[in-house]
Amino acid sequence: MARVGGLRVLVAGASGYTGALAARLLWRHPEFELVAVTSRSDVGRRLDDLYPYHRVPLVLDALDLDRQGDVEAAIVAYPHGASAPVVAQLRERGIRVVDLSADFRLRDLEVYGEWYGEHGAPELLPEAVYGLPELYREQVPDADVVANPGCYPTATLLALAPLARAGLIGDVVVDAKSGVSGAGRTASDTTHFVSADENVTPYGVPRHRHRPEIDQELAALGAPVVATFIPHLLPLDQGELVSCYVTLADGALTEQDLAALYRDAYTGEPFIELVGRPPGVRDVRDTNICRIHTRLDERTGKALVFAVIDNLWKGAASQAVQNLNLMFGLDEAAGLE
Amino acid sequence: MARVGGLRVLVAGASGYTGALAARLLWRHPEFELVAVTSRSDVGRRLDDLYPYHRVPLVLDALDLDRQGDVEAAIVAYPHGASAPVVAQLRERGIRVVDLSADFRLRDLEVYGEWYGEHGAPELLPEAVYGLPELYREQVPDADVVANPGCYPTATLLALAPLARAGLIGDVVVDAKSGVSGAGRTASDTTHFVSADENVTPYGVPRHRHRPEIDQELAALGAPVVATFIPHLLPLDQGELVSCYVTLADGALTEQDLAALYRDAYTGEPFIELVGRPPGVRDVRDTNICRIHTRLDERTGKALVFAVIDNLWKGAASQAVQNLNLMFGLDEAAGLE
Amino acid sequence: MARVGGLRVLVAGASGYTGALAARLLWRHPEFELVAVTSRSDVGRRLDDLYPYHRVPLVLDALDLDRQGDVEAAIVAYPHGASAPVVAQLRERGIRVVDLSADFRLRDLEVYGEWYGEHGAPELLPEAVYGLPELYREQVPDADVVANPGCYPTATLLALAPLARAGLIGDVVVDAKSGVSGAGRTASDTTHFVSADENVTPYGVPRHRHRPEIDQELAALGAPVVATFIPHLLPLDQGELVSCYVTLADGALTEQDLAALYRDAYTGEPFIELVGRPPGVRDVRDTNICRIHTRLDERTGKALVFAVIDNLWKGAASQAVQNLNLMFGLDEAAGLE
Amino acid sequence: MARVGGLRVLVAGASGYTGALAARLLWRHPEFELVAVTSRSDVGRRLDDLYPYHRVPLVLDALDLDRQGDVEAAIVAYPHGASAPVVAQLRERGIRVVDLSADFRLRDLEVYGEWYGEHGAPELLPEAVYGLPELYREQVPDADVVANPGCYPTATLLALAPLARAGLIGDVVVDAKSGVSGAGRTASDTTHFVSADENVTPYGVPRHRHRPEIDQELAALGAPVVATFIPHLLPLDQGELVSCYVTLADGALTEQDLAALYRDAYTGEPFIELVGRPPGVRDVRDTNICRIHTRLDERTGKALVFAVIDNLWKGAASQAVQNLNLMFGLDEAAGLE
Repeated sequence: MARVGGLRVLVAGASGYTGALAARLLWRHPEFELVAVTSRSDVGRRLDDLYPYHRVPLVLDALDLDRQGDVEAAIVAYPHGASAPVVAQLRERGIRVVDLSADFRLRDLEVYGEWYGEHGAPELLPEAVYGLPELYREQVPDADVVANPGCYPTATLLALAPLARAGLIGDVVVDAKSGVSGAGRTASDTTHFVSADENVTPYGVPRHRHRPEIDQELAALGAPVVATFIPHLLPLDQGELVSCYVTLADGALTEQDLAALYRDAYTGEPFIELVGRPPGVRDVRDTNICRIHTRLDERTGKALVFAVIDNLWKGAASQAVQNLNLMFGLDEAAGLE
Repeated sequence: MARVGGLRVLVAGASGYTGALAARLLWRHPEFELVAVTSRSDVGRRLDDLYPYHRVPLVLDALDLDRQGDVEAAIVAYPHGASAPVVAQLRERGIRVVDLSADFRLRDLEVYGEWYGEHGAPELLPEAVYGLPELYREQVPDADVVANPGCYPTATLLALAPLARAGLIGDVVVDAKSGVSGAGRTASDTTHFVSADENVTPYGVPRHRHRPEIDQELAALGAPVVATFIPHLLPLDQGELVSCYVTLADGALTEQDLAALYRDAYTGEPFIELVGRPPGVRDVRDTNICRIHTRLDERTGKALVFAVIDNLWKGAASQAVQNLNLMFGLDEAAGLE
Repeated sequence: MARVGGLRVLVAGASGYTGALAARLLWRHPEFELVAVTSRSDVGRRLDDLYPYHRVPLVLDALDLDRQGDVEAAIVAYPHGASAPVVAQLRERGIRVVDLSADFRLRDLEVYGEWYGEHGAPELLPEAVYGLPELYREQVPDADVVANPGCYPTATLLALAPLARAGLIGDVVVDAKSGVSGAGRTASDTTHFVSADENVTPYGVPRHRHRPEIDQELAALGAPVVATFIPHLLPLDQGELVSCYVTLADGALTEQDLAALYRDAYTGEPFIELVGRPPGVRDVRDTNICRIHTRLDERTGKALVFAVIDNLWKGAASQAVQNLNLMFGLDEAAGLE
Repeated sequence: MARVGGLRVLVAGASGYTGALAARLLWRHPEFELVAVTSRSDVGRRLDDLYPYHRVPLVLDALDLDRQGDVEAAIVAYPHGASAPVVAQLRERGIRVVDLSADFRLRDLEVYGEWYGEHGAPELLPEAVYGLPELYREQVPDADVVANPGCYPTATLLALAPLARAGLIGDVVVDAKSGVSGAGRTASDTTHFVSADENVTPYGVPRHRHRPEIDQELAALGAPVVATFIPHLLPLDQGELVSCYVTLADGALTEQDLAALYRDAYTGEPFIELVGRPPGVRDVRDTNICRIHTRLDERTGKALVFAVIDNLWKGAASQAVQNLNLMFGLDEAAGLE
């Protein structure tokens, strides 16, 4: 099924949930040719043995650029911290990279250090572009290192960008809910079926690693607000909902103004759906779509914004492909429908 | 198993989730004797056929006080609106009632009318007591009509009462999450397994019927705030979590102050657990317990309060039994452990 | 997205789970043009409002062949009994039909009557072809009425066909497990989340409507056996597993013989996967694939065969499209990958 | 809550699912005093921190009989193989033991060796009694070592005992379905939420460790049959269903005979429920009850028997307490309602 003769690409770290999904999408992509899937664990195992439902008949290999380096692009799905050195290796050979880790998302090295420790390739930080195409569509095409946003920041920023740009966010509470796949493939007490099933729990209270990323980007949009961000673990596989409660900086907004603001911002966006009723995560499962519903609460004057994505897709792997498409001048939606 | 010779009690509306659970609790209660379970549907069917896991071997009967009226107490689990006339009937015979509907929760008839329509027994409203024992323990024992709180108000008010009483709530966002049993036994598109499974959806945006109840009681506690309250439907059976984001009226609170406030309020409460980490709904499943975790977010100055209950138990049936215990001078925890 | 200028097709009964999925597949099909989606309920509602995740932007219409009849093909997804008259109507206009109901699956009118009542179009029965392409690939292309198999028969027959054809089935027990979507969209006590969640229940004991269909086709394959078939309802959305326990007519089979039998039968089949370990329904979710694992239990001499499908896909809608592809001389896999 | 002055008991291995539940039951038992909970992991951690919902406020301790040995009874919940030496230690001090592992279930040392390796205390094997009270009620009271049955054997043997004793089992297929808690607390790929959710998979094909246990006990009941036994993993927490397909040795049985056979066998049994329709695992959740439904399939002459238990309760911890009750001359149901 893979297109022979297309743009050559590899996925490094393909044994985790997001890397494996990226491999699946590239394996069926009309313009890319997936030439290698690498992993630190499970080397020698077929990817379709590990993930039958992705149906990628490639064998996981150890990363070795002397053998696999003849590619034009790579998606890197390593853990935070471990990713930066691999990205640096790939860049040395001129390979353009979309990195799924947090390593190139935070522009301030000090902030990075506070949350993740020492950075493995600080020299690359200045050139990295934050790969949320709806916000950085102009910058992504020319970037050689694209930092794919975290799943929570993706949903939160798409939910809040129109209000942020309009300078309307006085204060904001983001109550986020995610399925268990967001916790990754590693087996743990938290991801055990018996722990997560019939349960719901807040976590990362009050310091979750996605908060500085949200803060940085809200500020970049013109809303230098200190957001309250609390994620919750839900008994479902894929899917993420952010419920945003915005105290407006300017109380004069009507329901119609609010709707118009979002319509203006997102009309024509291929992967944003504005809808007239509260969305469910099932509405966007297995898609690159972010579905958004806005509502003005007349009694409190607050703007309510609900946004759903699939955390493994728009929150990670399919957004990485969307970025690759932009970087190589392809149709932004290629391979994503 | 039922105690013959105990206080005679009936459950009206025992074919729904909360009524059936009330029947189970009373059937095994050391001081009550459950003499009848009535229903508008399923008459003639055994309750343990309808709900095998409750193991109450009684036959559902039509309500007929000429036959069943020789009781001292009743729990009424009718829908909103249908409940008031039944409560009035019971009161005419001197039977003391805990009502699980909303009919006697709102003290202002006009507010009631706005949300539920015409009231079926307005004359009883003045004497009804709001049956949240942790807040109204002094009033419940003398009441003949106790309005059992809604599930969301129960969790929300227990989460916020200490801050409300201290006059510390400047603004509050309550993001609530509930399992599907909260939607009741009626089969619908919403409660269909395929709709709820692998999904999470906000609902009642921004006007949910539990909001006026929350507002009324926060005001009664000294916090005349306009709360933002948004519930979400989760793919689980029983359990409810409220995540409360409180902008403090007085910013000088420390983490220690906050903890002390709750310790002072709840030490000695038999059904409140204060814990040092975020709670999960599974922690309180099938109990009358409300588990609360507080946290001060130093960056924003907000107080975060998370509370979990079992919506069918503390949010309905077991709280009704707790109220009955108080009304008849019994140990508040009788039959609830 | 729909291909204008392709083969014109309509879906009658598109508001149910299988009809809606058929509409989704045809809407994105490279050769068909979906011109109408009809329904007896929900007329006037957009299909992507009812099923956001299918993203078919058509409005449900009442069936009216004077308006919609200019099509070459139709998929009918009506309930059993209601389907036959609609199929007859379509045939009168020369429209070729794949019918998802049971109305044309049973060749013996008397057997049909015993399970479903009077037949609505018995005159069409003789020409109907049983649309399990792996068994009837020669007959489907020339058929004007294709009876799409039931979900359980699809999995069961694919699991047992090689043994049946070889005359090796002495006796067989089929223990089937299905997700709740198999029960259809109608809200009921059975499909209520609270009933199905954390539960598993046998049903249709011992007479399930799919049994005569299984018997008929096993006999047609050369195994006139009286199968034991018991389905179970599982707490999951989509997916079906049949566990088949075969007492061999001839005990001389080895593990290798068994494997070879299946390899010979299914090599080259585009939608059959033979695998070396027990399959899970998740392996085939949202695909037209049937995944099969065989094992000989040396202690008992029984052949064990496990087969998984997605009940809404290979068990219904995608198999209907597979049949349409064959009927119109297209690539059998068109629109199914 | 623990009864001071009761029979002193300890639970060794209380950090796993079954040991923790045993601790919970003994903590609330009217006759036992739970004096210690020990563990090889999590020493120093409170049990109600690890399992909030069990609400046992004891600290997990390392096993040290010099400190904890002044008890009359112990429940041991160690893994297979590790359990035997601990049981031997306890016996040396005269402590009577219910062992939840497989170490004392198989009477034949050779069979044990084949499935589990070398036995750690073979000298105790002859005196061990198989602790299925419904079958061995006469032997349990005098035993000092009771081997608590596996969860699958418990359900299977209760389902089949009446037929086995009557010599009616010609052949039998047992298709078993279990929730994920049956796989234990250890985090693994299998127990990861993302693996188990929306899935169902056969496992242990065709050699599961519970098979020799089932064979041994069926033979002891008079049915020296080679059973086919295949378990399946289901997306639920607690609960187990066995669907038994029995080819009768004597075909003359009627539906009424079958029902009478079970009624005769189980009337008066405190924890067996015979019901007229297929049971669901939810019917017996959190109970020591086994619920059984029988049906004769007239077409095939097979007897169908469906039995449900809670794998952690009747399949492990509550059955252990039932055994303890018998061993100490207490009411068999004490602490189990």
